Amino acid sequence: MIKSVQNQIFKDALSLQNKKLRDKNGLFFVEGKKQIYEIPKNRAIKQIFISEKYKNGVIDFKNVITLSNRLFSKLSATKSPQGIMAVVEKKHYAVEEIIKNSGLFIILENIRDPGNLGTIIRSADAFGAKAVFVSKGSADIYSDKTIRATMGSIFHLPIIDNIDIENMLSSMKKEKISVFAASLKGKKYLNDIKFPNKSAFVIGNEANGLRSETENSADTLVKIYMPGNAESLNAATAASIIMYEAVKSR
Amino acid sequence: MIKSVQNQIFKDALSLQNKKLRDKNGLFFVEGKKQIYEIPKNRAIKQIFISEKYKNGVIDFKNVITLSNRLFSKLSATKSPQGIMAVVEKKHYAVEEIIKNSGLFIILENIRDPGNLGTIIRSADAFGAKAVFVSKGSADIYSDKTIRATMGSIFHLPIIDNIDIENMLSSMKKEKISVFAASLKGKKYLNDIKFPNKSAFVIGNEANGLRSETENSADTLVKIYMPGNAESLNAATAASIIMYEAVKSR
Repeated sequence: MIKSVQNQIFKDALSLQNKKLRDKNGLFFVEGKKQIYEIPKNRAIKQIFISEKYKNGVIDFKNVITLSNRLFSKLSATKSPQGIMAVVEKKHYAVEEIIKNSGLFIILENIRDPGNLGTIIRSADAFGAKAVFVSKGSADIYSDKTIRATMGSIFHLPIIDNIDIENMLSSMKKEKISVFAASLKGKKYLNDIKFPNKSAFVIGNEANGLRSETENSADTLVKIYMPGNAESLNAATAASIIMYEAVKSR
Repeated sequence: MIKSVQNQIFKDALSLQNKKLRDKNGLFFVEGKKQIYEIPKNRAIKQIFISEKYKNGVIDFKNVITLSNRLFSKLSATKSPQGIMAVVEKKHYAVEEIIKNSGLFIILENIRDPGNLGTIIRSADAFGAKAVFVSKGSADIYSDKTIRATMGSIFHLPIIDNIDIENMLSSMKKEKISVFAASLKGKKYLNDIKFPNKSAFVIGNEANGLRSETENSADTLVKIYMPGNAESLNAATAASIIMYEAVKSR
């Protein structure tokens, strides 16, 4: 059992709380038993950390390291940790191959709230979207808050981060993907759209929506029918309704 | 300008950070200029607090009290406060009258996350639901996180808290309201339902869904078509999709 904050294994793990070091090392945390059991067999788990008091069933993983309760609390992102965390390797995806497929692709532009980002990934998984592309300037897909909100869906479909929106949209157009974008300026309602087999949907920032360059690059601007008073929906809500409708209408 | 933490006005305001004292005094905070401007003219605003550095335009309210930056920070729920907060009186609604109306009513059972609760209220407003009923045991509708997530929608439609679900459902049935409930056990898909003019929809807890008593009391259990991998949606997402579909289909 590791008890000292000076232990190198502990120090290396603790450094992953920093986004830059997560990026550099290509590693991230997954916390809690339920989420850890969502990790597919073919994904590389570098380590499992458990707290000394963790007794929650047998753990059929290699590389299980026990930490004192004090050290585990330092590593955990939650106030009342369950006592189990995994360090998982990030996966790299071949974007060019992915967009050759049919289906619905989701593109997120500057989604800043990690809870929204994780919720969108969870919905994309539920509705069978083919991949989620996340722009530079969005929240980190590997932060603890995002991972927690995905409820394991981070492992179920390709999530590609640090995307340049302009490049992505032009690559998609070459692949004959129809690009839709959610905008209050849209003239067409979501429920009037027949989504082609190859469709992409762009969702903008929580406060400011899409950048005008992105609106101009989209083939069709779409709005959601809202007969009530509120001006707009939460970004994760809007994205989820779009995915629900797109999957249903095909 | 108030500078002392011993000042009674400041102390009274600070006490509203505590739910019990919010309940006892029938008051709550609304923070930020945009949200404060959503407060309807007929709602009683007890006080407006601004920080000494707040210079963001003219404030056409009575009872504006300036606090030192230090005191304002203590009152504010945000790390980087804008510098304006209102103390607003809670409103009481005549439930018996509300449910005589036609339209869609939303009932929330044990929604624990204030962000989800606020997001559902925002969507209910966007889709023109008639009222939102929030059960005992749910998050506080008047907490700063809930209010912030509503984006002003807390003022746009009746939100009734501390509801007893059994009593509510039996009152609704007397008013010939059809009661639907979201459940993974549902045999009917959401998009196959034709919602009657008087409909209510019950949404359950984030982790555990609805209590079985509530499922048994509903007229129809409904599920959302999800062809993908994720078992379930975020509670606010599910509620919003239901409202979107219910409003569209009537």
